[in-house]
Amino acid sequence: MLFMASSKLIDSSCSIARSLGVLGERWTLLILREALTGATRFAEFRAALGIAPDVLADRLSTLVEYGVMTREPYQEPGARVREAYRLTEAGRELQLALWSLQQWGDKHLPWPDGPTMLRRRCTDGAAVHVGYIDEQGHEVRAGDTQAVRTAAYPSAD
Amino acid sequence: MLFMASSKLIDSSCSIARSLGVLGERWTLLILREALTGATRFAEFRAALGIAPDVLADRLSTLVEYGVMTREPYQEPGARVREAYRLTEAGRELQLALWSLQQWGDKHLPWPDGPTMLRRRCTDGAAVHVGYIDEQGHEVRAGDTQAVRTAAYPSAD
Repeated sequence: MLFMASSKLIDSSCSIARSLGVLGERWTLLILREALTGATRFAEFRAALGIAPDVLADRLSTLVEYGVMTREPYQEPGARVREAYRLTEAGRELQLALWSLQQWGDKHLPWPDGPTMLRRRCTDGAAVHVGYIDEQGHEVRAGDTQAVRTAAYPSAD
Repeated sequence: MLFMASSKLIDSSCSIARSLGVLGERWTLLILREALTGATRFAEFRAALGIAPDVLADRLSTLVEYGVMTREPYQEPGARVREAYRLTEAGRELQLALWSLQQWGDKHLPWPDGPTMLRRRCTDGAAVHVGYIDEQGHEVRAGDTQAVRTAAYPSAD
């Protein structure tokens, strides 16, 4: 039922709806949050999120199906073969959407003790935020941005 | 049941989880998409999205409750009083998260006819993208960004 709803979104001409078709199921963005901070094993995702195994397996399968993660066998000495889930380049690019939500939550749904994570540049530790950027690499104010329809936009029925 | 799950997320120390507690229900981000392109009336949201009235009413109530939208009465001549839903400043700031998803979907889940919406600067129509920015307003490469835990990060049990 949920999967049917997702399939409907995946067939949308709207790229927000298509993204949500893959990413919008409950838990999926939190699974990606764990993957971006280094989780690769089923047991790690399960321990971090406390979700039911069948739900976790379903969400990971969807992410593999749509090229957000890869599933590869790995084996530790003396243990049986297990599977490791790793982000693809497309998956790593979702950090931007997750940081957008993190930044918004830090500002508008603040935690009493302050933010638990900060966004930084690796090279010098300087603060980094998510925002709008022009083709010259300079920030654009939010109020100076607009979405414009193209010829591919579906016409009203 | 769904609302209980959301409440659980809202109490998380993770600002991504808190944001999803308000925004992560099915349809909510698409309701915000419609609001960002000018929809204000219940009937407009319903016609654009084709969702059940009780689900739409529930999602709008959550958005009002958490300060993303306001609900105000309005009356057209000869008609009964209705309610208009408008984005607050916090709600307009969600354009960033929606554009992040749009940009990702355009690249990784492309539509056969090409993107239906483009992201532009109002003043000159130049292309705008969402990305990482330092304190001097210059773009930072994705590979040069990292999330760093603060003292507020919950310790492992």
